[in-house]
Amino acid sequence: MPRSIKHCRACGAAVSYRTPADDNRDRATCTACATIHYENPLNVVGTLPVWQDKVLLCRRAIEPRRGLWTLPAGFMELGESTAAGALRETIEEAGAHVEMLGLYTLLNVVRVGQVHLFYRARLLDTEFDPGPESLEVQLFSEADVPWPELAFRTTRTTLELFFADRRAGSYGVHALDIT
Amino acid sequence: MPRSIKHCRACGAAVSYRTPADDNRDRATCTACATIHYENPLNVVGTLPVWQDKVLLCRRAIEPRRGLWTLPAGFMELGESTAAGALRETIEEAGAHVEMLGLYTLLNVVRVGQVHLFYRARLLDTEFDPGPESLEVQLFSEADVPWPELAFRTTRTTLELFFADRRAGSYGVHALDIT
Repeated sequence: MPRSIKHCRACGAAVSYRTPADDNRDRATCTACATIHYENPLNVVGTLPVWQDKVLLCRRAIEPRRGLWTLPAGFMELGESTAAGALRETIEEAGAHVEMLGLYTLLNVVRVGQVHLFYRARLLDTEFDPGPESLEVQLFSEADVPWPELAFRTTRTTLELFFADRRAGSYGVHALDIT
Repeated sequence: MPRSIKHCRACGAAVSYRTPADDNRDRATCTACATIHYENPLNVVGTLPVWQDKVLLCRRAIEPRRGLWTLPAGFMELGESTAAGALRETIEEAGAHVEMLGLYTLLNVVRVGQVHLFYRARLLDTEFDPGPESLEVQLFSEADVPWPELAFRTTRTTLELFFADRRAGSYGVHALDIT
């Protein structure tokens, strides 16, 4: 578990990692004002935008995995829902116009303390506008997906599930762990 | 949006809220070492444990909402999946023995920056052991659920969906916003 907190966000004094009386794991605890600082997993929210038989991917302009392909996604922000965050990232990274459909995948990436949530989305047109985090935005049919050049396993898993579900004719909600 | 961070967790110096060059919202930024501190929504994970025609509820021993009834749930921790966290909370708060079933509800509580995720679970027996966060643990049939004494809207919504789905004979996955 990370021990990345050195100082108290409330008063600036040094913290020490100790287990609070009513708790069962170590927390960064301020040695001056006793404020406890919790560290918790983060949500990454995104979409799987579809146009006819094609899916939209973005080629990353930023690290990590610069130059590789990903579904539009990013960290969920305070003040938004998971779906609103997924839509925001789709606009920011692809400039795409979509109708949001249902929640599609919930993928635990425990090793990095993240939960990735993807929504299916219907593209309303094929006008894109790659944002500063994308080198390019492109539609791919299943046969053309650049599988060896995908940036993240959660993108790969979501695409694999989508093409399998499409063949089966029914889209469920998939909750899986990426190990 | 909260502005709860006063000091840098890396070096202890004061932060100021400003928008980084490659960003579009204010972040707590260290005035000394330039570390950026992000604040993001938290996941609350829990279960809806079922025994025959009854559901399990816990009466809260802690604030907020001490004395009111809730499904077993709590903040997701680093190092665990959503399902593992939901199971852990079920053990900690109810001492219940369950078989985890599927993801059932994803409920955005935007106002407080939380996403609540409940899994359906099958109780393996009726031996419970209320943890320090619970005053008591009890099984309720639909007619006996203490609706006016439920602690949280996400508990109420999850129970309402469950009883409706049970009548309909089919349990989906429900993604909703609590407004």
